[in-house]
Amino acid sequence: MEEKGISQAVIGRLPRYFRYLGELRDKGVERISSQELSRLMRVTASQIRQDFNNFGGFGQQGYGYNVEFLYKEIGRILGLDKTHHLIIIGAGNLGQALGNYINFERRGFILKGIFDKNPALYGKKVREIEVQPMDRVEEFVRENDIDIAVLTVPKSSAVEVAETLAANGIKAFWNFAHVDLNVPEGIQVENVHLSDSLMKLSYNLERYNKEQENG
Amino acid sequence: MEEKGISQAVIGRLPRYFRYLGELRDKGVERISSQELSRLMRVTASQIRQDFNNFGGFGQQGYGYNVEFLYKEIGRILGLDKTHHLIIIGAGNLGQALGNYINFERRGFILKGIFDKNPALYGKKVREIEVQPMDRVEEFVRENDIDIAVLTVPKSSAVEVAETLAANGIKAFWNFAHVDLNVPEGIQVENVHLSDSLMKLSYNLERYNKEQENG
Repeated sequence: MEEKGISQAVIGRLPRYFRYLGELRDKGVERISSQELSRLMRVTASQIRQDFNNFGGFGQQGYGYNVEFLYKEIGRILGLDKTHHLIIIGAGNLGQALGNYINFERRGFILKGIFDKNPALYGKKVREIEVQPMDRVEEFVRENDIDIAVLTVPKSSAVEVAETLAANGIKAFWNFAHVDLNVPEGIQVENVHLSDSLMKLSYNLERYNKEQENG
Repeated sequence: MEEKGISQAVIGRLPRYFRYLGELRDKGVERISSQELSRLMRVTASQIRQDFNNFGGFGQQGYGYNVEFLYKEIGRILGLDKTHHLIIIGAGNLGQALGNYINFERRGFILKGIFDKNPALYGKKVREIEVQPMDRVEEFVRENDIDIAVLTVPKSSAVEVAETLAANGIKAFWNFAHVDLNVPEGIQVENVHLSDSLMKLSYNLERYNKEQENG
């Protein structure tokens, strides 16, 4: 079953299904109906069936879904059956936090290198991996089969860094810099704009407060 | 102009408009047409006009938008004209990274306290703010007019911590724990599930690789 032309909204929901199914599996649950999954995840059963139909449906509704099968299939669709090699650009607090997050390794995202332009950080270790100078990154990417770069640099340097890395073979950017990257066609970018997320929270908080004031 | 019933998709785009308008303002640009903004932001002019129409349109199209006015209006809609008091729960790498991020303060999000249950971290300073023991957090929230809690604790404790904080007056959670919170009606939650974001990147990378292989 090929998954052509699936909307990013559907893709964006897959990791949450994967998370819930992993928890069910860890609890020893073998089968679950779309109704039960719906109650657990607080989305409609219809939404779940529609989402899964994008990938062929994953099995018979009447008997519910096989949890183990569904977990593995969604993992495969997400590319989690493959190993990915990551580097982190920017060894500040956020870069170190991401580098220390071992759950990523469990999912097949293997940290291979960390780079920074601040000499004070050279040699500092994040889980056995030493921070290296930025001027070594191009050679490192070419020689170590790196496919994902995590950008935790200031926005003033992120665009240029991304261009350089893309030219040396990086296929995907996980971008924490508060700027939109400008990369060639075919290179994937996933933005985590933390300020944007905090502003959205602020909006919803203000909105609710206003509604309460207005009765 | 009231902004009732606006979709979260529109709200989710407001911070990006705010960011671009802030950059235009900093460059001294006074007016911009929806066409120019469209080219800059790589969204259609029609999308921009539709988004802005949710808030009354922000001025005459023929003359373009007044950048300063639009920047301030969107900031006001996002609640950035108010001051918010934050606490961070969890003083690990990620908690420290967020605590050190001074741009949040520029937007009116003022860090008032950091809490952790690990005694080894008590007294450690993140920008002049000392990490305090978790058992002080309830009193602190009640006495310091805290409205937002940032959760950077493991998922095993996040749900319980959120319930306790909500019972003591926290109105909004910025949740980095990899679990869906269960909070009372009217309490706002904005999730930053980093693993989900990385999995989405992985999906798009695999998808593209497969398309290339299949010609």
